[in-house]
Amino acid sequence: MPAPNDHIARLRLIRSDNIGPVTYFQLLARFGSAQAAIDAIPDLAARGGGRAPKLASKAEVEREIEQVAKLGARHLFLGQGLYPPLLAELETAPPALIVKGDLNLLDKMSVAMVGARNASAAACRFARQLARNLGEAGTVVVSGLARGIDSAAHDGALDTGTIAVIAGGIDIVYPPENEARQTAIAERGVLVAEQPPGVEPRARHFPYRNRIIAGLTQGTVVIEAAPKSGSLITARYAAEFGREVMAVPGSPLDPRAQGCNLLIREGATLIQSADDVLEAISPLRARPFRQRELDYAAPGPSADSDAAARRTIGQLLGPTPVPVDELVRQSGLTPALVQTVLLELEIAGRLERHAGGKVSLG
Amino acid sequence: MPAPNDHIARLRLIRSDNIGPVTYFQLLARFGSAQAAIDAIPDLAARGGGRAPKLASKAEVEREIEQVAKLGARHLFLGQGLYPPLLAELETAPPALIVKGDLNLLDKMSVAMVGARNASAAACRFARQLARNLGEAGTVVVSGLARGIDSAAHDGALDTGTIAVIAGGIDIVYPPENEARQTAIAERGVLVAEQPPGVEPRARHFPYRNRIIAGLTQGTVVIEAAPKSGSLITARYAAEFGREVMAVPGSPLDPRAQGCNLLIREGATLIQSADDVLEAISPLRARPFRQRELDYAAPGPSADSDAAARRTIGQLLGPTPVPVDELVRQSGLTPALVQTVLLELEIAGRLERHAGGKVSLG
Repeated sequence: MPAPNDHIARLRLIRSDNIGPVTYFQLLARFGSAQAAIDAIPDLAARGGGRAPKLASKAEVEREIEQVAKLGARHLFLGQGLYPPLLAELETAPPALIVKGDLNLLDKMSVAMVGARNASAAACRFARQLARNLGEAGTVVVSGLARGIDSAAHDGALDTGTIAVIAGGIDIVYPPENEARQTAIAERGVLVAEQPPGVEPRARHFPYRNRIIAGLTQGTVVIEAAPKSGSLITARYAAEFGREVMAVPGSPLDPRAQGCNLLIREGATLIQSADDVLEAISPLRARPFRQRELDYAAPGPSADSDAAARRTIGQLLGPTPVPVDELVRQSGLTPALVQTVLLELEIAGRLERHAGGKVSLG
Repeated sequence: MPAPNDHIARLRLIRSDNIGPVTYFQLLARFGSAQAAIDAIPDLAARGGGRAPKLASKAEVEREIEQVAKLGARHLFLGQGLYPPLLAELETAPPALIVKGDLNLLDKMSVAMVGARNASAAACRFARQLARNLGEAGTVVVSGLARGIDSAAHDGALDTGTIAVIAGGIDIVYPPENEARQTAIAERGVLVAEQPPGVEPRARHFPYRNRIIAGLTQGTVVIEAAPKSGSLITARYAAEFGREVMAVPGSPLDPRAQGCNLLIREGATLIQSADDVLEAISPLRARPFRQRELDYAAPGPSADSDAAARRTIGQLLGPTPVPVDELVRQSGLTPALVQTVLLELEIAGRLERHAGGKVSLG
């Protein structure tokens, strides 16, 4: 069965340099479809005063689709089909995921469990038991397939349902000793990758992976983590996304407990049992999914940029990141028009997007 | 030097059966002095429909005063002289304390440290170090001279200033192995007892002692405590008195950490260091002491009870505790008059006072 043209067009954008999740979403919102966005890109880049980015070729993405199918996996596209609606809430939601396994698990209540790779034996045992108890209560356990706590969490929930989000491609085993575990999860649980097949995990991929772990779930439980660890990054993502942040405490004398204790001091819920977790996330179970506004910049005369608007925004922008809201206020232009000008600058390679909806000249 | 008559009169009330801290305070507030209260008691009891309580004799309390002096200790009376003003804020403030040692420590910034008698060696070491660091930061450490955490806390702060509140009389060593520690604190720190000399500590004395520990201090830190321990009672007193409640976390796998983790789940501040303690209590350092209203029921015609008022209150009271406020509202009488009628019933042995300002027929 050949891939639909929409999927091919989407992947051509997604696999292009300089088109990240935010830009991708802006393009689809502005032009209504991936193909329309592709058609518009040369014009956008010209108006933005730069050169159009090189898009991934049709042949390249067809090769990826074929390869994913061969691996027994499939793509899920943002806003379509089985794509997890909690993850779709993120401003930086991955435009596509590659998934393999029992996809029924993707729309169940879920909790992330993360922690130190060098965790103590006691903490690993606690994590395994907590995951088992959460699973028995009908909750899917999501983690990152790392050594230590992650592995223990997956093991405890393998019988009831677990999702592993990996930093590299879906066909890359990492760390090597987790090969059997990764295979088992791809059969009985779900394996999730954002990178295309063949990509070896690199340092920069791990924070991306962590945002998916936090974004997929109603809450994140941290078990043994150092103050500056990846686990704490996952916890901060969970907080940023409005999800529950939970931590298992430990003695102040144990360095591996300090990250968790710090989180609790900052307001994370102290967790001693699966019941504590279920109680903490229960308010989130009931809330409806947040729909991101897909049509704020629907095409129309008012959103077409003109030289005057481009000049105004160009003057307001500088190397210091400013909120888009501030640009709207100070320019006196409509939000849709401001977004269009920013998109043009971005496609032209002249804009940088920063956390918290800020932009600067790049 | 003979004891002032006011002290003798106060102690005669304090050492009488059925006159607890709340009644004592009511009597002094209503009649202006301990002697005036003693003179009024037969009349009060008659109006309350019962028999006057047997007061301690002048000879008995003179003997106590002599004995306390011989022990190198002294009385502090509520609202007078060196009596600690933070402790005086309590509705159940002890009418008198017997103290021995360096009384300069009584008006310094202070923190209570309490915990399990059977604490782990690691927790005792942590407590000793925390006490030392708090002491070095100019904070007096208050505890209960029990085994385990209490002893460690006193030891850590002995050089900088520590106060031990004991459940029995000031001359009674308990537990026996703490004799040297108790002697050292009575010389270099402060030893505090609510019971008169010679009283062996009994189970009911320990919660009384715990309220003094919580009441003397800006906050209470709990280190290793079981969920139903005396340490948690001290923490609840601290919360009730508007002081800071702090707890040192531990692994959920350690039963001795569960009381502390429970407190943190309920809102206690998680403590890992002396800095954490100092930060938590800093807002309380600045606030003025609360003065209990001593003159709300000043003698006067409006506060004299009459048969109608006694009948009304008698009808509203039953075996179920009700708030005094509710009696005021439902009776339509002035607060002063309601308090007077309640005091009469109490002195007559017909009223019981409960936590939270509630009363019932006894």
